[in-house]
Amino acid sequence: MKIENQLYAFTIQPQEVDFQQKATLATIGNILLTAAGYNADDCGFGSRKLNEIQCTWVLTKMAIEMAMFPLQYEEIKVKTWVEDASSLSTTRNFTIYNKDNDIIGYASSNWVMLDIATRRPKRLDLLEGLENAVIPENCPIEKPVKLTAINGKLLDSFKTKYSDIDINKHTNSVRYIEWISNCFHLDMYKERNISRFEINYITEILFDDVVNIFREEIKPNDFRFEIQKEGKAACKARMVWK
Amino acid sequence: MKIENQLYAFTIQPQEVDFQQKATLATIGNILLTAAGYNADDCGFGSRKLNEIQCTWVLTKMAIEMAMFPLQYEEIKVKTWVEDASSLSTTRNFTIYNKDNDIIGYASSNWVMLDIATRRPKRLDLLEGLENAVIPENCPIEKPVKLTAINGKLLDSFKTKYSDIDINKHTNSVRYIEWISNCFHLDMYKERNISRFEINYITEILFDDVVNIFREEIKPNDFRFEIQKEGKAACKARMVWK
Repeated sequence: MKIENQLYAFTIQPQEVDFQQKATLATIGNILLTAAGYNADDCGFGSRKLNEIQCTWVLTKMAIEMAMFPLQYEEIKVKTWVEDASSLSTTRNFTIYNKDNDIIGYASSNWVMLDIATRRPKRLDLLEGLENAVIPENCPIEKPVKLTAINGKLLDSFKTKYSDIDINKHTNSVRYIEWISNCFHLDMYKERNISRFEINYITEILFDDVVNIFREEIKPNDFRFEIQKEGKAACKARMVWK
Repeated sequence: MKIENQLYAFTIQPQEVDFQQKATLATIGNILLTAAGYNADDCGFGSRKLNEIQCTWVLTKMAIEMAMFPLQYEEIKVKTWVEDASSLSTTRNFTIYNKDNDIIGYASSNWVMLDIATRRPKRLDLLEGLENAVIPENCPIEKPVKLTAINGKLLDSFKTKYSDIDINKHTNSVRYIEWISNCFHLDMYKERNISRFEINYITEILFDDVVNIFREEIKPNDFRFEIQKEGKAACKARMVWK
């Protein structure tokens, strides 16, 4: 729900929390993407508008830092804005507030506009309204970086199923966050909190694809991931716990 | 959101639809359980109230019949009421309306009140307010029945993970619906619609449990399922396609 320009409210639903009544990281990711969608709509370049010119937004990178996770039934607010737009990629930032209006997290993301038919990026300077929407306000966390290869151990392997596939006919971006969150035991969630999460989306994962998830602990409580499809990284990620 | 007594509105969110932009059966199940929660709260016997006396509601059986599935961004309404309450089990019914106020589905469910410490059912006649909330209005679909054993084929096998586990520290009821929905190829969803779904919840599935899903096609497009844990049925279900 829109509260004011760039500011949207969300209530954490029972199905969005984990065994400790905390919103999951996938829930936070989903809320950020929903806020991004609302704001893009408000600015005149939402997905439905892009669909009219046979294009769609694709998330390529995201970094999320959380000081704490909101609880079941808590109302949180997300402020979001486009910080900059180059010819092929745009940066969208987020500030997350808890029910007391304290900042509990930040996020920064990169997006490209994809031509639905060719599956190739399109020039953003052709997109009406984007330049006027830019608010050159920085986000105080490190931007999402291009993650390097890892020497990981196979941790999980499965085929994608009906519930993984969204209206773009590929695996939903939030599902990757869920898969990575699932690489840890409940005990880890009892003892620690995720402080930084970073993800690079590289290639699409489709229905019935075999997915292999590799993990390496680079430093204590600093984990790197590769989600592989046909032996190649379809996604890379990093999860830091404090 | 409450509209009037017993009537609640929901907007189908992007993450709640499948590749055809239709709300998934798991989404419908989730919306029904959310409406049940709202109505129980309004009547004074919601989960948080039950928690105060160290109890919780447990869904034991549910039947859902859908004439059509709502689409992304569609606002639907759910009417729900308690039809009857015996000493150990209560029946809650649902009518689902689309954006034009046409009825698109019905559901009927059975619930018991569980003592959190002993994990055993408690007598419902001890529960204040329940008797006054009963509205002896029938639901025009067949009530959920006790499903019999099947001679099924193993279709899926996996361990439960972090994202499967809810605040009651067991697998969320909606997750079972997702697992069963995942036993079909996208082609089935393109060609047909789920017309009736029925589920019996028998024993809890916990974190890291190995789950085996068996399926048998009893009649053409009439499928029966068993979700087994340690060789015993933890859940039985039926899914009919038209």
